Amino acid sequence: MAELLDINIELSCTGKCDGCEKYFDCELPQKNQLLLQTRMQKARKALDRIKHKIISVGGKGGVGKTLCAANIATALAMKGRKVGVLDQVFDGPCIPRMLGVEGKGMDYTDEGLIPTEGIAGIKVASMGLILEEDEVVTWFHEMKRNATEEFICHVLWGDLDYLIVDVPAGTSSDTVNVIQYIPEMDGATVVTIPSEVSQAVAYKAIVLLQKANIPILGVIENQSAFTCPKCNLETAILQSGGGETIARKTGVPFIGSIPLDHRIAECADDGEPIVFKYPESEAARIFIKSAELIENKCGME
Amino acid sequence: MAELLDINIELSCTGKCDGCEKYFDCELPQKNQLLLQTRMQKARKALDRIKHKIISVGGKGGVGKTLCAANIATALAMKGRKVGVLDQVFDGPCIPRMLGVEGKGMDYTDEGLIPTEGIAGIKVASMGLILEEDEVVTWFHEMKRNATEEFICHVLWGDLDYLIVDVPAGTSSDTVNVIQYIPEMDGATVVTIPSEVSQAVAYKAIVLLQKANIPILGVIENQSAFTCPKCNLETAILQSGGGETIARKTGVPFIGSIPLDHRIAECADDGEPIVFKYPESEAARIFIKSAELIENKCGME
Repeated sequence: MAELLDINIELSCTGKCDGCEKYFDCELPQKNQLLLQTRMQKARKALDRIKHKIISVGGKGGVGKTLCAANIATALAMKGRKVGVLDQVFDGPCIPRMLGVEGKGMDYTDEGLIPTEGIAGIKVASMGLILEEDEVVTWFHEMKRNATEEFICHVLWGDLDYLIVDVPAGTSSDTVNVIQYIPEMDGATVVTIPSEVSQAVAYKAIVLLQKANIPILGVIENQSAFTCPKCNLETAILQSGGGETIARKTGVPFIGSIPLDHRIAECADDGEPIVFKYPESEAARIFIKSAELIENKCGME
Repeated sequence: MAELLDINIELSCTGKCDGCEKYFDCELPQKNQLLLQTRMQKARKALDRIKHKIISVGGKGGVGKTLCAANIATALAMKGRKVGVLDQVFDGPCIPRMLGVEGKGMDYTDEGLIPTEGIAGIKVASMGLILEEDEVVTWFHEMKRNATEEFICHVLWGDLDYLIVDVPAGTSSDTVNVIQYIPEMDGATVVTIPSEVSQAVAYKAIVLLQKANIPILGVIENQSAFTCPKCNLETAILQSGGGETIARKTGVPFIGSIPLDHRIAECADDGEPIVFKYPESEAARIFIKSAELIENKCGME
């Protein structure tokens, strides 16, 4: 196969450690540890007043990774924590809209970018605040890698209890880039939807996190069953049980299922996460539970 | 800003036309037209027995781009057309499962890869058929570009009426790569979900297609309103109207709304697209309408 198709499917060493997808499980003598160390030092300095860093990982696109990041950040802020959200999604960033800062831009000084304050006092840094709304930028890979590094190292967060990092979908080099740059991540939440096709991708994301030695706090199943507001009939529109299945398969805790609820999309579009606007909802309960797990894990309770 | 952040945000020319995100609207004298011509010639030769090529574009991830590709391909095959599906999604390809060929692998000869026959006789080529199911491969960018080219040029399709191409989400360089390689695309369908955050990304996808001179057949809104099977109450769980809004904004036809229907995910997981299993469903109606639009556009009626 490899002869027919000129594809480096075996991932043999190309000598380029920078952004290499095999970085975390590479044991080759030529592995450039120094590269990562230098890079991490730079990032560590930029993030040194942040107590804890949590990453929201999704596997497949569109499963609600950003939704979970926004709501978990809000739940932590509602508990009185100082929270920042670093949006590392460059192709269609949704964090600004979900946290109510869309169109507000980001100020900057000679020292760096000043995050924009959103709902519940959350500090938001996103490429979506820098680019014009209708501007179509296709990020070329090298450019994206530079932007990743620059963005991580140039935001003036100040003192934070938590930084929630939203990463691109997939287990692609974009995600690996972010994971390579940010040192000492305290934990990750993995979001999936119930369907089996989504589980397969979530599985890959979990394996990647395990290789990178990032503790997995748990799996959240989004877009679970819908309960009719009129007759209370429950329908598993996008199947159900996928989150629990993948958690069991990988030995990772299962946090809970977020039901399909029309208020979730409404709140996201309005820039007021459901955990803030409807704290009594079932969705809010799962986000608050996730926030508590994080507090627990980080010894902040 | 550009001074503070070392990001090529203005996309000034780096001299690398290969995969450049500005390729389609670049008017610089140094633009390497030859590169694309050579590449297109290679692809044209590989695809010369295919009458029409249609691309399914989604903007945001997880909106149902692959679902639409699979169902539209099936609808065309059910009309007696010879159809192939080229799955250019390398991070978590879902086409094999949806078209019932998961785990079946792909044979190959000295001349190239032999597509695997799925539901309704559709010929399927996907990286998901080459890699092991649980194999976690993070595609590094250069590798992905090579694989894109190799994959397009090495599948032995034979005579086809239609090749449906499923591309990665977003308007990223991965998508640009595929669009650069495949010459004379006959049309594109754009899939969105109703929410406003998704519309913003769909808008960018439409602009990209227009720049690349690919005719847009229309916009499909997926995950539209849900009708309770017990009391018939209709709920717009993920909002509604987004598809029509984006179609109007960009002057592109609106094809229709696919309701939330539990049978859609069920059929996708089972490898039998809903248009095949439940041809009387509302979802099937939209896919059949899309297929008819394609037939019409390609003069195959």
